[in-house]
Amino acid sequence: MGIVVQKFGGSSVADAERIISVTRRVIAEKDKGNWVVVVVSAMGKTTDNLLALASQITDRPDPREIDMLISTGEQISISLLAIAIQSMGYPAISFTGPQIGILTDQIHRKAKIVHINDEKIKQALEEGKVVIVAGFQGCTLENEITTLGRGGSDTTAVALAAVLGADVCDIYTDVDGVYTTDPRIVKNARKLDRISYDEMLELASQGAKVLYSRAVEFAKKYNVPVHVRSSFNDNPGTMVVKEEKDMEDIVVSGVAYNRDEAKISILGVPDRPGIAAEIFGSLGDANIVVDMIIQNVAEKELNDISFTVGKDDFNEALNVAKQECKRLKARDVVYDTEIAKVSVVGVGMKSHCSVAAKMFRALAKNNINIEMISTSEIKISCIINGKDVDKAVQAIHDEFELEGAK
Amino acid sequence: MGIVVQKFGGSSVADAERIISVTRRVIAEKDKGNWVVVVVSAMGKTTDNLLALASQITDRPDPREIDMLISTGEQISISLLAIAIQSMGYPAISFTGPQIGILTDQIHRKAKIVHINDEKIKQALEEGKVVIVAGFQGCTLENEITTLGRGGSDTTAVALAAVLGADVCDIYTDVDGVYTTDPRIVKNARKLDRISYDEMLELASQGAKVLYSRAVEFAKKYNVPVHVRSSFNDNPGTMVVKEEKDMEDIVVSGVAYNRDEAKISILGVPDRPGIAAEIFGSLGDANIVVDMIIQNVAEKELNDISFTVGKDDFNEALNVAKQECKRLKARDVVYDTEIAKVSVVGVGMKSHCSVAAKMFRALAKNNINIEMISTSEIKISCIINGKDVDKAVQAIHDEFELEGAK
Repeated sequence: MGIVVQKFGGSSVADAERIISVTRRVIAEKDKGNWVVVVVSAMGKTTDNLLALASQITDRPDPREIDMLISTGEQISISLLAIAIQSMGYPAISFTGPQIGILTDQIHRKAKIVHINDEKIKQALEEGKVVIVAGFQGCTLENEITTLGRGGSDTTAVALAAVLGADVCDIYTDVDGVYTTDPRIVKNARKLDRISYDEMLELASQGAKVLYSRAVEFAKKYNVPVHVRSSFNDNPGTMVVKEEKDMEDIVVSGVAYNRDEAKISILGVPDRPGIAAEIFGSLGDANIVVDMIIQNVAEKELNDISFTVGKDDFNEALNVAKQECKRLKARDVVYDTEIAKVSVVGVGMKSHCSVAAKMFRALAKNNINIEMISTSEIKISCIINGKDVDKAVQAIHDEFELEGAK
Repeated sequence: MGIVVQKFGGSSVADAERIISVTRRVIAEKDKGNWVVVVVSAMGKTTDNLLALASQITDRPDPREIDMLISTGEQISISLLAIAIQSMGYPAISFTGPQIGILTDQIHRKAKIVHINDEKIKQALEEGKVVIVAGFQGCTLENEITTLGRGGSDTTAVALAAVLGADVCDIYTDVDGVYTTDPRIVKNARKLDRISYDEMLELASQGAKVLYSRAVEFAKKYNVPVHVRSSFNDNPGTMVVKEEKDMEDIVVSGVAYNRDEAKISILGVPDRPGIAAEIFGSLGDANIVVDMIIQNVAEKELNDISFTVGKDDFNEALNVAKQECKRLKARDVVYDTEIAKVSVVGVGMKSHCSVAAKMFRALAKNNINIEMISTSEIKISCIINGKDVDKAVQAIHDEFELEGAK
């Protein structure tokens, strides 16, 4: 008896017809004799529509009330999917995140799962039921409804797979798997059969939206095999797994891009120890996740500090930056919301040199200016002008001959 | 410091604009120095739309999953109203029925409130917040989401008013108050300034949809003054209150009608003791509320038993009736879904005679046939052909000169 967790995104449950076709996949797994747990997102554009309603009332809604509002989206999908599965003659039961005991911290709209009580799920599975859980949501100890932020349903699915010791976590999506880069930009992008957690993590955090980084972190931590595959066909997708020896033979696995960041610079910051800790401490206190940070000397004893944040956090980050600028008696705050980030990712980088030079060369050949650079063991990212993204991704993909690699 | 409970129906919160206009009423009450608890229904047609989604999947959805589905409707309204009130600078917090501790029995779609925990509400009120509670919903001891059936939001509001010892429960609706009859049918129907709980109860259970009978039962039991008033203007509405002496001077307070019932007859039932108890016991076990019951002798030792049920319950009631017919070796089951019920209600009936005769005369003068009759201390109801309703209501209203009464 295996345990399979299946996750279906919003486009897979966008209407009654698609919900019915999701039931076929659920039943197929159940018929194999597996215990099946299904995690679903809100139908189609439901979350966006609910947010649009709130924005008709005010620009700055209370995050607690937004969580109350948007968590209804998944609650609608789970009940409809349960009804659909039952109508096929299979017992099924739906649970909201709070009901099933997905306990989170108190940070509304970006809550982190702190504990999952698997008692109720296991009981229902033992009773022979398909268990359907609302993705993206949980609750605090005080029974306040929270949501997990972008990609929250992926996180719910992988976390449940981890807690239940599932054999696999199937992430059904509208693409066939993880590609060397976005196939909408690069026509000859290639689907990867497998990818390591670390590479997926870098690709995800660099903007590849097929699987979100927090879900990958969970998968890595608990060693959950994740299968990213299409909800529209039965082709094998991409297995996201623990790094294996032969993976290092491939220097670069993929090229990612991200248009959802903005750059903020605090200019003329006094050069004394602890300044950076103060600035980024304040941003952290405001629950803003900072991506790249660059500091260089502008003039004698004055530094320029630049950083990038997600566009969702831009307004708040800019406020914090302005307060810090005033407090530190720095010169000015400037920003640029028209930037983009391109990244190459590959575990093989650890054992190969000149990957960076090759990437910079691809950009230079195409007259693309690099504004910021950041590297990790298995990733190199460059901030460029937003209008150059497509050209940059194609150039890098070509330079590393990703369409032809094994 | 008074406590005011305000209830707004679906049409009062149908869109962002109307939600904003609801906030004005809430704030006006708050500005008087009162503690304000607001109960809201789902926006406009939300509940119907959700039910339509489920019916695209199957005709017989699981009531538990339907409660999961439709309870999202109120959750959307409460969060949007909280956001709207906050945007006016007033602290507010929303709670779902399960969150606030509205404990019900386990009958999905028709759950009854068994207990309300007022701790969380009182704490929030003491913190100066407007408390917004989702109407129509609660949860069982096992944390299963339930809904309270038709008029559930009225019931939530009155029950909260009772528990909190509120000074008044304002029911905001799309009409000006309780009328002598439906003003859409009888042009010269008159608004009542006040009405007793018992009369309101009879009017409500006879189909006057302005306030549902279960809410009135609660109000009567806990002596909660209920003010039925328009959400579109500031005119005083109708106070529903304890019966006062002078109310008996008015023989008939109102005329109600109901097109939402259907009649089922079991023909040729053996005439032995306990038969009726068996039939209506089976209907009760199926959670079907039976309204009128009539039994008369058809032929020697065989009875015809007729009863009416809400159209929502008709299919299930018909199944039960057919089973009982078979079991009891009765002759046949026949039904009529094109019936309607007209009723006159008034506490004054207790001390006046010939009200019934007057009502029958009004119907006879208009060639309207009476199929069933049922009476209580303060009410007389007749089942007639559905097509005759408008004519019947107008005739009875004229006969009792309700447009001219004090």
